[in-house]
Amino acid sequence: MELFQRLKADAGADWSAYVSHEFVEKLGAGSLPEASFRHYLVQDYLFLIQFARAYALGVYKSPTVDDMRTSLEGVKAILDIELDLHIEMCAGWGMNKAMIEASEEDRPTMAYTRFVLETGMAGDLLDLQVALAPCVIGYAEIGANLEKRYGGDLAANPYRRWIEEYAGYLYQALAKDFGDWMDRTAEIYLTEARYPRLAKIFRKASILEADFWQMGLDAEATQH
Amino acid sequence: MELFQRLKADAGADWSAYVSHEFVEKLGAGSLPEASFRHYLVQDYLFLIQFARAYALGVYKSPTVDDMRTSLEGVKAILDIELDLHIEMCAGWGMNKAMIEASEEDRPTMAYTRFVLETGMAGDLLDLQVALAPCVIGYAEIGANLEKRYGGDLAANPYRRWIEEYAGYLYQALAKDFGDWMDRTAEIYLTEARYPRLAKIFRKASILEADFWQMGLDAEATQH
Amino acid sequence: MELFQRLKADAGADWSAYVSHEFVEKLGAGSLPEASFRHYLVQDYLFLIQFARAYALGVYKSPTVDDMRTSLEGVKAILDIELDLHIEMCAGWGMNKAMIEASEEDRPTMAYTRFVLETGMAGDLLDLQVALAPCVIGYAEIGANLEKRYGGDLAANPYRRWIEEYAGYLYQALAKDFGDWMDRTAEIYLTEARYPRLAKIFRKASILEADFWQMGLDAEATQH
Amino acid sequence: MELFQRLKADAGADWSAYVSHEFVEKLGAGSLPEASFRHYLVQDYLFLIQFARAYALGVYKSPTVDDMRTSLEGVKAILDIELDLHIEMCAGWGMNKAMIEASEEDRPTMAYTRFVLETGMAGDLLDLQVALAPCVIGYAEIGANLEKRYGGDLAANPYRRWIEEYAGYLYQALAKDFGDWMDRTAEIYLTEARYPRLAKIFRKASILEADFWQMGLDAEATQH
Repeated sequence: MELFQRLKADAGADWSAYVSHEFVEKLGAGSLPEASFRHYLVQDYLFLIQFARAYALGVYKSPTVDDMRTSLEGVKAILDIELDLHIEMCAGWGMNKAMIEASEEDRPTMAYTRFVLETGMAGDLLDLQVALAPCVIGYAEIGANLEKRYGGDLAANPYRRWIEEYAGYLYQALAKDFGDWMDRTAEIYLTEARYPRLAKIFRKASILEADFWQMGLDAEATQH
Repeated sequence: MELFQRLKADAGADWSAYVSHEFVEKLGAGSLPEASFRHYLVQDYLFLIQFARAYALGVYKSPTVDDMRTSLEGVKAILDIELDLHIEMCAGWGMNKAMIEASEEDRPTMAYTRFVLETGMAGDLLDLQVALAPCVIGYAEIGANLEKRYGGDLAANPYRRWIEEYAGYLYQALAKDFGDWMDRTAEIYLTEARYPRLAKIFRKASILEADFWQMGLDAEATQH
Repeated sequence: MELFQRLKADAGADWSAYVSHEFVEKLGAGSLPEASFRHYLVQDYLFLIQFARAYALGVYKSPTVDDMRTSLEGVKAILDIELDLHIEMCAGWGMNKAMIEASEEDRPTMAYTRFVLETGMAGDLLDLQVALAPCVIGYAEIGANLEKRYGGDLAANPYRRWIEEYAGYLYQALAKDFGDWMDRTAEIYLTEARYPRLAKIFRKASILEADFWQMGLDAEATQH
Repeated sequence: MELFQRLKADAGADWSAYVSHEFVEKLGAGSLPEASFRHYLVQDYLFLIQFARAYALGVYKSPTVDDMRTSLEGVKAILDIELDLHIEMCAGWGMNKAMIEASEEDRPTMAYTRFVLETGMAGDLLDLQVALAPCVIGYAEIGANLEKRYGGDLAANPYRRWIEEYAGYLYQALAKDFGDWMDRTAEIYLTEARYPRLAKIFRKASILEADFWQMGLDAEATQH
C-alpha cells in the first residue's frame, strides 16, 4: 500500500475531512439519525452499480490477464454478492427492492461515480485505480477506526452491522489487495513527473467522497 | 429543435429551476454580487475545457463524416476562440490567466462535466448530444429571455456583455444548429422505447446545470 | 434470435464464406492439417483475451443491471473457465502455457478483435452485440452443422472435441441466450433507419472471422 | 524525436519492411501499377477518416489544454484540408467523390485504424501517440527517402505529387512536431518498465502499415 500511503499523506486535510466526517463519527457513536443512514444506504446501492461499471472498465483497461482477473473480482463482488446484501440490509430498515430501484441518484452519487469512470476512461489503469482508492481503501480505514474506538460498545449501535462489515477480515483483506494491486501497476506506470496528476485525482475523489457523507447528513431534515 | 422541445417539456420544473435560477434573474437585473460572477466566470473557464473534450468525444463517436465536422466546430469554437474570450472577460474583472489556470474545479463543475463525458462514452452520439443540450441550448434560451426582459435597460448592467453574447445572433444560431443536429441524429437513433432514458439524461443534466448557478450564488459569502 | 436471423440473411455470401470456410469443412472431415489447427488454437487463446475485454466493455456499456449481469457472464466464462480449457486442449497438442503466452497475435486476430472493441466503444451496447454476434452465434451454427453432417463419424476425427464443444448443449444454449439478449436490446435501440449501419458491422465482422479461418489454413505451409 | 528513434531502432526489420516496402520502392521509381495506386488512394481516404477520429480521441485523452490544442491540429488538418485534397488527387486519377465514398474499407485499412483507436482508448495519450507514430512520422521518412533517391528524376513520375507532398517542408515539420509532442508526453509518462509495452505497440503498428502497402500491391491483379 505504498502509493496509497503517499497519496493519503499528500491529500492531508481533504483525506481527514472524508474519513473523520461527522457522518462517520455519528455512525460509530450510534447517534446518526435513521433518515441519514437510510438515505445513504439507498444511494450507496446506486453508487455500487456505477462501481461495478468502473471495475468492468478496469478489466477492459487491464494491460495483462492477471490485471483483468483482479479487476473482475471487483465486478463479481458487487454484481454477484454486494447488491443482494444491500437489498437485504435495506429490508432491515423497511425498504424493499422496488423502492430502492425506483430511487434516483442524488448529486453526490453522480458526482463521485462519474468522476471515477471518466478519469479511468481518459487515462490508464493507474488513473482508474487512484480514483477508486479513496472509496475502496478508505472504507477499510474507516471501518477499522470505528471498530477500534467503539468496538467494545457496539451491542446497542444500530449501525453495528455496517461497522463490522468494513472492519471485518474479508473487507480489510480486499482493501489491502487493492492497494497492492495499485502498487504493482505503479511499478510499471508511475513516474515522479506524473505523480502530481495522480495526487490531484486522489484528492478530488476524497472530496467527492466526503460530499457523499454530507449528503447523508443533509437527508435528516428532508427525510427520504 | 423537435427533440429538444420534447425533452424540455418533460423536464418541467427541473428545466425551469435551471433557466430561471436566482443567479440568472440577478444577472439580468444587474444585482448579482460581483463575487458570484467572478467565481462563475473562472469555473466556466474550467467547464469549457471539459466541454471541448466532450465535443472531441463527439467527433470520435460520430457515425458519419458530416457528424464529425459538426462536432469539430464545437471543439474549435472553444479551443480556438472562447477560452481566449474568457481570459479577456476575466481580465475585465481583474483576474489574469495565471490566476484562472491555477484555480481548481469546484464540485458542480466536476459533477456536470463528468456526467456529460461519461454519458457520451457509455452511450452513443445521441446520448452525448442530449447530455450537452441543457448547456448548449439552455444558454441560448437564458440569453434570449434576459434580452427580452432587460434588453432596453442594459446600459448600466455590469453583466451586459454576457447577456449580449448569449442573446446575440451568433450564439442563437449555434444553439439552433445544435438542436437541428440532434434531430438529425434522432431520426436515425431514436425510438419511443428509448426515449425515457434520454429524458432522464436531459433532466439530470438540467439539475446539474442549476447546481452550477447555485455554486455562483454560494460564492458570494466565501469570496473567491 | 430475430435480429441475428435478419443480419445473417443480409450478410448473404459473406456469412456463408465464413461458416462454410474450407477450414471448417476440413475440421469436420478431420482432414485439416495439424499445423493449421495448432496455429488456430494458439491464436484463439489470444483472441479470447480480447473477447473477455469486449464483454467487460459490455458491462460498462450496459444501460441496466440485468444487462450488466448478462454481459458479466461472458467475461466470467472466458476468464474463469475457457482460457484454462484452452491451455488444456493445447497441452493435448503438445503446447504448454508458456509457449502459448509467448505467442504474438497474428494480423487476423488483431483485426477482428480490435474491430469489435472499437465498434462497441464508439457506439452503444447494440453495436457491440452485433459486432460480437458472428463469433458467438456463428460458432454455434458451425458446431451444429458439423455435428449434423459428421456426427456419426467423429470417433477418428482428431478435432472431435472442438466439434462436440460447440455442438454441445451448453454452447448452443449460450449462443441462443446471446441472440435473445441482442433482441431485447434491439427492442429498445433498433430503428429501421439505423439497421443498415448494423448490417454493415455484422458483415464486416463476418468477413474478419473468415479471415481468421484463412489464417489457420495459411499456417500449414509456414508451420507454427 | 528521441522516443521515436528508440522505438524505430527496436522495431528493426519490421520497420524496414514497412518504410522500404516494394510498394514504396515502385512509387519512387514510378513503376507502381496504376491500379495499385488507385486502390491505395481510395483506402487512404477511408483511413484518414479513422485517423481524424484518432486525433479527436487524442483531444479527449489530453491531460493539458496544450495537448488538446496540439491534437486538435491533427483533426483539423484531416477534416478541413486533407480529405478535400484527397478527393482532388483522386479526381486526377479519374475517380469522383461519390465513387470514393461508396467504397468499402479493405481489411488492412480496418486492421490498422481500429488497432490505433483501440490502443489509444484502452491506454493513455502516450499509447495513442505511439500507435499513430509509424504512420505520422513514417510517411515523412518515406517521403524524404524517396526525394533523396529520386528527387532529380521526378518529372516523369506519375506519383510525383505524392512524393513531393510528404517530402515537403510542411509535412516534414508536422512529423517533427509530432515526434516532439510524443517526447513531451514521454517525459511525464514513460518508465523503463513500461517501455517494452510501447515497443510492442509500435512494432505491431508498423506491421499493420506494411500490410497497407501490400494491399495496394495486391490490388494490381484484381483491379479496383
